[in-house]
Amino acid sequence: MIMNKRIEIKNLKEYYNQNVKIHGFVDSIRDLQYVQFVVVTDGTGKVQVTIEKNEGNAVLNEIVSQITIQSTVKVEGKLLENEKVKLNGMEILPISIEVTSHCASELPLNYKDRNGAEMDTRLDYRFLDLRNEYNATIFKIQSKMVQALRQFLYEREFTEIHTPKLIAAASESGAEVFEVNYFNRKAYLAQSPQFYKQMAMAAGMGRIFEVGPVFRAENSNTNRHTTEFTGFDLEFSYIDSFEDVMHLEEEMLTYMLKEVKESYGDLIEQIYSKPVIVPTMPFPRIKLLDLYQILEEKYGYHVEEAAKVDLTTEAEKLAYQYAMDTYHSEFIFVTDYPKDKRAFYHMRKDGVPQGYDLIWRGVEITTGAQREHRYEILKQQAEEKGLKDDVAFYLTFFQYGCPPHGGFGIGVDRLTMLLLGLPSLKEAMFLFRGPNRLNP
Amino acid sequence: MIMNKRIEIKNLKEYYNQNVKIHGFVDSIRDLQYVQFVVVTDGTGKVQVTIEKNEGNAVLNEIVSQITIQSTVKVEGKLLENEKVKLNGMEILPISIEVTSHCASELPLNYKDRNGAEMDTRLDYRFLDLRNEYNATIFKIQSKMVQALRQFLYEREFTEIHTPKLIAAASESGAEVFEVNYFNRKAYLAQSPQFYKQMAMAAGMGRIFEVGPVFRAENSNTNRHTTEFTGFDLEFSYIDSFEDVMHLEEEMLTYMLKEVKESYGDLIEQIYSKPVIVPTMPFPRIKLLDLYQILEEKYGYHVEEAAKVDLTTEAEKLAYQYAMDTYHSEFIFVTDYPKDKRAFYHMRKDGVPQGYDLIWRGVEITTGAQREHRYEILKQQAEEKGLKDDVAFYLTFFQYGCPPHGGFGIGVDRLTMLLLGLPSLKEAMFLFRGPNRLNP
Repeated sequence: MIMNKRIEIKNLKEYYNQNVKIHGFVDSIRDLQYVQFVVVTDGTGKVQVTIEKNEGNAVLNEIVSQITIQSTVKVEGKLLENEKVKLNGMEILPISIEVTSHCASELPLNYKDRNGAEMDTRLDYRFLDLRNEYNATIFKIQSKMVQALRQFLYEREFTEIHTPKLIAAASESGAEVFEVNYFNRKAYLAQSPQFYKQMAMAAGMGRIFEVGPVFRAENSNTNRHTTEFTGFDLEFSYIDSFEDVMHLEEEMLTYMLKEVKESYGDLIEQIYSKPVIVPTMPFPRIKLLDLYQILEEKYGYHVEEAAKVDLTTEAEKLAYQYAMDTYHSEFIFVTDYPKDKRAFYHMRKDGVPQGYDLIWRGVEITTGAQREHRYEILKQQAEEKGLKDDVAFYLTFFQYGCPPHGGFGIGVDRLTMLLLGLPSLKEAMFLFRGPNRLNP
Repeated sequence: MIMNKRIEIKNLKEYYNQNVKIHGFVDSIRDLQYVQFVVVTDGTGKVQVTIEKNEGNAVLNEIVSQITIQSTVKVEGKLLENEKVKLNGMEILPISIEVTSHCASELPLNYKDRNGAEMDTRLDYRFLDLRNEYNATIFKIQSKMVQALRQFLYEREFTEIHTPKLIAAASESGAEVFEVNYFNRKAYLAQSPQFYKQMAMAAGMGRIFEVGPVFRAENSNTNRHTTEFTGFDLEFSYIDSFEDVMHLEEEMLTYMLKEVKESYGDLIEQIYSKPVIVPTMPFPRIKLLDLYQILEEKYGYHVEEAAKVDLTTEAEKLAYQYAMDTYHSEFIFVTDYPKDKRAFYHMRKDGVPQGYDLIWRGVEITTGAQREHRYEILKQQAEEKGLKDDVAFYLTFFQYGCPPHGGFGIGVDRLTMLLLGLPSLKEAMFLFRGPNRLNP
């Protein structure tokens, strides 16, 4: 009579006229004169439990009258098809209801209304905030996105590595690094796996990637800054130019968007009102100065010469518009940044850094480059930027042979934000971290 | 005449009598009276490049005479089948050789001899140490292992999440936590994602996992301790007992070992002399006290009553022997530990923690449990252990309904060490971290 195995609510329709067991949160209760309705959700769907008020149901009626919304219940009973039930045309007539956890009667957050509370309150009660379907689904999609990115790389024989986050020296510069008390000395939290990705190249590992936390001690409180986020970084050897790096990235993102569209395209359109567009390759490429010239000619966007060493936020947006207008592309590679604005480890050719930024939907999502792999030149480029002691350990990697290589990094959270059109990075993070936010 | 695309050395045999381009490290050079041989490796295989000494080859002869071992070279030339060449029966007659990076003439580590240097020297020059095939292959296998573990969970609709490593309070106890200077206040590095995995359950996320770094400020210098390692953690809801957790874990590990055996079984046997054994389910289960009784009866292993609250290192080894002798199983679950030795968040039934340790090949690889999800009981169990303020934020997760759930964690590095029979955890980590080791 009693089933052992819990059925997920989305699969119930295979079990009409059978006894089923479900387990989930109480989504709503209606306690009427002759009948009680309890709607239960387990994250896969919702189902109505119907309890008539009569003597035979006295125990169940009493239990239901005590249940608070958002408690969890395990329900066993007969599943019936019933056209009159608006919710999926089915109901369960229970033979037992067990309250497996109790929700305090007043919720500190009305999680059903995404706009009913300030972001800070939502984050304070993130464990309730994530009961909202809009919020919860973000992470299913993010998981799929990262799965697809990894799958693309596995198919190309990339090895996933795990590099240390505790490091002895500030990774790229002295600024914006968290300091750790490490057995009576100082350690630092890695700002990026850059140096270790390249160490893997010097070690002859050929093709590697890493997905892991990166830390930035930036005291900025904006919707685009965070002190900790998830980086997706890769590096590979035996390239001929940074064109190989751009090509791998466009292939990888195209693959990912195709996979995400297949699994979640309709849901994304439905919940977030965003189309998932599988791009066509190659993505357009343009030099930074050429871009500024076109933005001026085409959109009347004028900036001072001195500002043309980097993309302004406005120029990122217009670059997107230009790419859409001219190439029907959501993506555009911008190349030929001046060396002052690029890391010392970017390879240069005739003084021009051999790297790029990739703009998607008006926001920069990647910096990629061919790296300088020749010890003497690399050392000189480091010294030009005033780096010496902190990068000494890194420079040794290049003294004993290292193949030409390149790579890039993507922020998983930022990619999620752009994919779903979320208003803030905070929405795309399971738990946001900022200068004023270490909780929960 | 000149090919654009580099060929991986393992694929060369498809290109006999064609012009090919390869790129890799110089593995060896023989400069004889009438001919020069250069063996090149790119991590996928090795190939011989043959340069006769004659006037037509004067430029190439000069280049080769200058090359140092472990420099990297890009070679273009004609690939010939040649039975006389011991190395794969093929050779390349080059038309061009480009030295793409230069190796300083004396290596600080003879990486080809794994036992030729102390572990500390090997770690100092890890970027050379990893050029050793034995060492490098560890990470290909580890990557495959983690890929298989994830795949198992994806197939069961688990969501991968990324929880913060910067936290406001020491996660489980005041001890052994790294302190971070966080904008004029203190933060700490997460010792485990435990609290956040459970937060996801309170949020109704159902099934989640995470792969990421965990930090332990233990001042221990052994082959089994490290201050930072890669944790593989999961948590899932709507379980009936911790039996569900053990079952998921045995299924997952069986799946993983099957996948690893298929891809790398022969190579693991060849390089590490370890068989990969796909287990049969269910794994044996035994209560802690029953185990001690059996170890005494069967192997004469006697310990004081007071020590029987936990598994000794010796008992872990004997438990493995017992499992092999009695069940031909490399795995054994040990249950019914006393509550003093288990975390406060383990559910108890009649005072007995509803969890387990899993022993593989004589070493504990997991602690798993059903968690206490009921607020009042959880709060009391925390207080019993003297925990209050530090866990206050965590306890709130359980005030508003939370389904029954359980989970476990595995150390990726430890699992790798046991899979390959490595002598130390240091071998299984891309870059080891310990109290005296923050470099490179």
